[in-house]
Amino acid sequence: MAQTVAHKLIGDHLAWGEMVPGSEIGLTIEQTLTQDATGTLVMQELEALGLDRAATQRSVQYVDHNLLQTDEKNAEDHAFLQSACLRYGLWYSKAGNGVSHPTHMQRFGVPGTTMVGSDSHTPAAGSLGMLAIGVGGLEVALAIAGHPLRLRMPRIWGVRLDGELPDWSSAKDVILEMLRRHGVSGGVNRIIEYYGPGVETLSAMDRHVIANMGAELGATTTVFPADEKVRSFLRGEGREDDFRELSADPGAVYDDHEQIDLSGIEPLIAAPSSPGNVVPVREVAGREVSQVVIGSSANPGYRDFAVAAEMVQGRQTDSGVSFDVNPSSRQILADLTKAGAVLDLVNAGARIHQAGCLGCIGIGQAPAVGRNSLRTFPRNFPGRSGTKEDSVWLCSPETAAASALTGVITDPRDLAADLGMDYPRIEQPVRASINTSMLTPPLPVEEARQEELVKGPNISALPELTELPDRIEAPVLLKVGDDVSTDEISPAGARALPFRSNIPKLAEFTFTQIDPEYPSRAAEVVDTTGHIIVGGQNYGQGSSREHAAITPRYLGLHAVIAKSYARIHWQNLANFGVLALEFADPADYDRLEGGTVLVLDGVRDALASGGTLTAFERGTDRNYELRHNLSSHQVDAVLAGGEIPLMRGGSN
Amino acid sequence: MAQTVAHKLIGDHLAWGEMVPGSEIGLTIEQTLTQDATGTLVMQELEALGLDRAATQRSVQYVDHNLLQTDEKNAEDHAFLQSACLRYGLWYSKAGNGVSHPTHMQRFGVPGTTMVGSDSHTPAAGSLGMLAIGVGGLEVALAIAGHPLRLRMPRIWGVRLDGELPDWSSAKDVILEMLRRHGVSGGVNRIIEYYGPGVETLSAMDRHVIANMGAELGATTTVFPADEKVRSFLRGEGREDDFRELSADPGAVYDDHEQIDLSGIEPLIAAPSSPGNVVPVREVAGREVSQVVIGSSANPGYRDFAVAAEMVQGRQTDSGVSFDVNPSSRQILADLTKAGAVLDLVNAGARIHQAGCLGCIGIGQAPAVGRNSLRTFPRNFPGRSGTKEDSVWLCSPETAAASALTGVITDPRDLAADLGMDYPRIEQPVRASINTSMLTPPLPVEEARQEELVKGPNISALPELTELPDRIEAPVLLKVGDDVSTDEISPAGARALPFRSNIPKLAEFTFTQIDPEYPSRAAEVVDTTGHIIVGGQNYGQGSSREHAAITPRYLGLHAVIAKSYARIHWQNLANFGVLALEFADPADYDRLEGGTVLVLDGVRDALASGGTLTAFERGTDRNYELRHNLSSHQVDAVLAGGEIPLMRGGSN
Repeated sequence: MAQTVAHKLIGDHLAWGEMVPGSEIGLTIEQTLTQDATGTLVMQELEALGLDRAATQRSVQYVDHNLLQTDEKNAEDHAFLQSACLRYGLWYSKAGNGVSHPTHMQRFGVPGTTMVGSDSHTPAAGSLGMLAIGVGGLEVALAIAGHPLRLRMPRIWGVRLDGELPDWSSAKDVILEMLRRHGVSGGVNRIIEYYGPGVETLSAMDRHVIANMGAELGATTTVFPADEKVRSFLRGEGREDDFRELSADPGAVYDDHEQIDLSGIEPLIAAPSSPGNVVPVREVAGREVSQVVIGSSANPGYRDFAVAAEMVQGRQTDSGVSFDVNPSSRQILADLTKAGAVLDLVNAGARIHQAGCLGCIGIGQAPAVGRNSLRTFPRNFPGRSGTKEDSVWLCSPETAAASALTGVITDPRDLAADLGMDYPRIEQPVRASINTSMLTPPLPVEEARQEELVKGPNISALPELTELPDRIEAPVLLKVGDDVSTDEISPAGARALPFRSNIPKLAEFTFTQIDPEYPSRAAEVVDTTGHIIVGGQNYGQGSSREHAAITPRYLGLHAVIAKSYARIHWQNLANFGVLALEFADPADYDRLEGGTVLVLDGVRDALASGGTLTAFERGTDRNYELRHNLSSHQVDAVLAGGEIPLMRGGSN
Repeated sequence: MAQTVAHKLIGDHLAWGEMVPGSEIGLTIEQTLTQDATGTLVMQELEALGLDRAATQRSVQYVDHNLLQTDEKNAEDHAFLQSACLRYGLWYSKAGNGVSHPTHMQRFGVPGTTMVGSDSHTPAAGSLGMLAIGVGGLEVALAIAGHPLRLRMPRIWGVRLDGELPDWSSAKDVILEMLRRHGVSGGVNRIIEYYGPGVETLSAMDRHVIANMGAELGATTTVFPADEKVRSFLRGEGREDDFRELSADPGAVYDDHEQIDLSGIEPLIAAPSSPGNVVPVREVAGREVSQVVIGSSANPGYRDFAVAAEMVQGRQTDSGVSFDVNPSSRQILADLTKAGAVLDLVNAGARIHQAGCLGCIGIGQAPAVGRNSLRTFPRNFPGRSGTKEDSVWLCSPETAAASALTGVITDPRDLAADLGMDYPRIEQPVRASINTSMLTPPLPVEEARQEELVKGPNISALPELTELPDRIEAPVLLKVGDDVSTDEISPAGARALPFRSNIPKLAEFTFTQIDPEYPSRAAEVVDTTGHIIVGGQNYGQGSSREHAAITPRYLGLHAVIAKSYARIHWQNLANFGVLALEFADPADYDRLEGGTVLVLDGVRDALASGGTLTAFERGTDRNYELRHNLSSHQVDAVLAGGEIPLMRGGSN
């Protein structure tokens, strides 16, 4: 049967299951990618799993998020990550080497392979013909330990590209067009596969832009074929040997369909505060701009900076604009410096920042309240910039540079007409400035076993998680409403975030936005009864952070009883041994009060046998019918106290 | 009579008084320098003074400290500062343009002129033959408004330089030698004047290094002659017209004497945690290093970066070292980029940060606990790096680069011998990359009057201060012990610092490290009686921050009664209308209890007539004899409610 690129990638790595949309499959994983904001927990999970040696072909730990080092905790995290890489046989990419996604593409990506990464923009590697999926940290840890990734088979969404982009439009405008058409959930449970004659007109780095920001469509991942453009990219990186061709068979059938004529794409921009708010730049032109930022994994390529440099060359950015440039990797910074682009940018008034993610994840470069900031970034959720009432717009480097020059949102075609400016034709350096000295390779296994994990005062071990008790007799310590987010469960922000490697300390922040006394009440019963939480609809929505499962678990949470769950948090609860139950009768939510002591007996048998459970209210004759939606593997995990004890127990 | 450079500078600007060490003089001030961390308050003070137009020749506001923008407050401060510059006729140097001291030297410094700056390293301008003094913000505001600086005439300390520096030693080692000999208080109440044949061997930027870090000796300021080296520097900056020669007359007499033979200077390093802990590098060589930072106003010159670049060219820094480069100004970054030095640094593994102060004042780049960080910075006070238990060393770029390559503290002479490395001979670019587009000049006065101050939600006006009442009947709300520091009065740190432009909000932190209830107790009586504080010896030691006087004043503080005061805080209390009294009998300190209500009657007459005051204890027959040490001008200020109401009242 004629196959798509996605089917070939999945078929080649199928550990179990069938490629039927919606059914569970297991995928063998060859590469992993972690970054510092999620990686410290992954390393603690490897430690808890008792891992001896990474089983993957290439696992790389990047340091690209928390680079500001406003106190000693960042530097401690870096030292811990480096020591864990030495111990477990991972590559370590030092702070300053660059953002994970472009750096991985340059140095490690291999067409035809699979990867999971604890970063939602991991799909960027689809630009090389990889199947690359963003997942929670524990799933990365399990992949490093050699376990296949569990996944429900997505639908394959074929997007046919025809024609060629006009001057002043670039790859960013293509993915913005997808977002304009389909919004931020258009890609849910889908793999987006680009094909057709238009694909050949896009460089590998252009495809990175499109695959990276496919995450904003909610897609499982994005794939491109591995063709001559990919071969040429790898040749420039001195890695032509890693190339293998991969393309859809003629007549391959996609589950869903879309078509884009590239020649009709005009400069687009996502207005505040969603990547899905896309409008043509010309419709919002003229609004005052106070900040323009170029960089991030959504526009990481040499050409993305060079095109801006050429536009501002010999000119001055507006005096009211802070023009910030975040090089995406050391290699690209070196290439840009050699070519004179850095000097052009500096002369035009740019603030050149260290290579890294920085402002893209709200680490620095926060804009002033209500003032427009134009960024070549992938996301503009409210407050993500670090400023609560921000006004962030997402656009191409062409639109960003044009607006930096004028001080107002500007369609680059208009600027070009005004100044008689030709569209910059950027020549990618034939050979990149390859320099691997900031990448520490894995140690030989015998040497690695001598390495100790370096733990500063802020690095804790992952707490030991114990089996689920057969009889739970515990108070409902907290009853919350609908749509409680993981941000409310385990807050981010400058106070809590530095403790993301320190679960005991981080636990003190759990639920404090809703109930400041929750951690202390939970601590009182953590060693005796433990406790239960009652939630409404969509419990645990929002960020995928594992901390929202681990910290209440650390404080003694045995079970959540809710009307319904957000998918990722529901998976995280199972991963960390918390029983996620639902009311058989949602009306019971109103009857069950906070403070009530519930008794669940014979829990282990009831779960193992797949039956429902009944919770009895102590001191009354009331009871509540409960059910669950866990797979048999998840039941095993919950019974064992989580995936880590389960894996350590040797079963799978 | 034969005069020193210092005497000529003072004599040419003497508004009143005589050049007798210890006696009060008034100095006409021609230039001012402010930075963003202190400048917002200066601008609020200009507003409170009702200023129409800066009276100085050149006043420049720099944005170089808080550049990380971890939330919206930084960007708000920048917008406020820019608007205040437009309103009052100041120059505005945008974030990214560079550190105040080297940038001021490049673009604004004029031999033979005077300057005050709200930054302790202001004396760096002495490298051009200026008299440049670091003072509190209000003193800068008064200078901008045209008032002479009040100062006690310092002693002039002549330091004769002979010979020439050997290879691998540079200007930083000269000032480290001064610190090795004299410690951190060796320069108190002195102006250091370098003279003799060795001066000619030092470039203007070398002299900047020495003058800048003269602040660490506690000196009032440092001066150099304005000679051919200064002319050549100004020529490179396109400002030869600003040059005027200035040198000591033959036979000029100094109050104090020192002599240094430059040819005997070896690489030196200040060990943790004081700039005065200076030892030869060779004595501490071999200790492991985890971070090396090059930059700051203490080593800001082109040569300081270029020498490091040449040393690491074609080599790799150690994998255990974070090699951080902080360009000191956009101009120097451009020069270094043109010359290929940036590429050399990047290739060797450097993290290139935006131009600014950054890690030098603990804004980012915090090292890991207990791990050695080598920096070309001026200060290594404990915790200043942002890490409480830090281990920071201060050294030359040569020592820093050598240690970055080896991963251990390394005498550059040893590295040179090992590698057969020649000492880099750096050619300063004949013509600097002059680019003034990030400098906004003052508006014409009529236009300036149309400008509005742009105040984000975090920018408050300076509180209105009222006259000292003639009868104070108020409780002692707080009684503290000896050596209370301004850090305890108005804490720094990540929680409080963002509110430095917001006195009402910052006031909530006042004294909370000693007594968390103080702000609320003070608020209860602020509109009725106000309150009094009782202190021990050396009240208000430490940082010069004005906030430690303003915030308790805002909360209703009328008077402090202490055994003795630290000098700068004592001045700040007078500046903001708080009466600083001393016990005539120190034993009274023990008798006077917190909570007591004191009555001081006829305060205004008693102060004006220079007599002592008596405080009666309400409800008992006890009383306390009190005195003060204020000058008649300070008495006027305290009676008026502070310098600002006094100035606004038109008297002086």
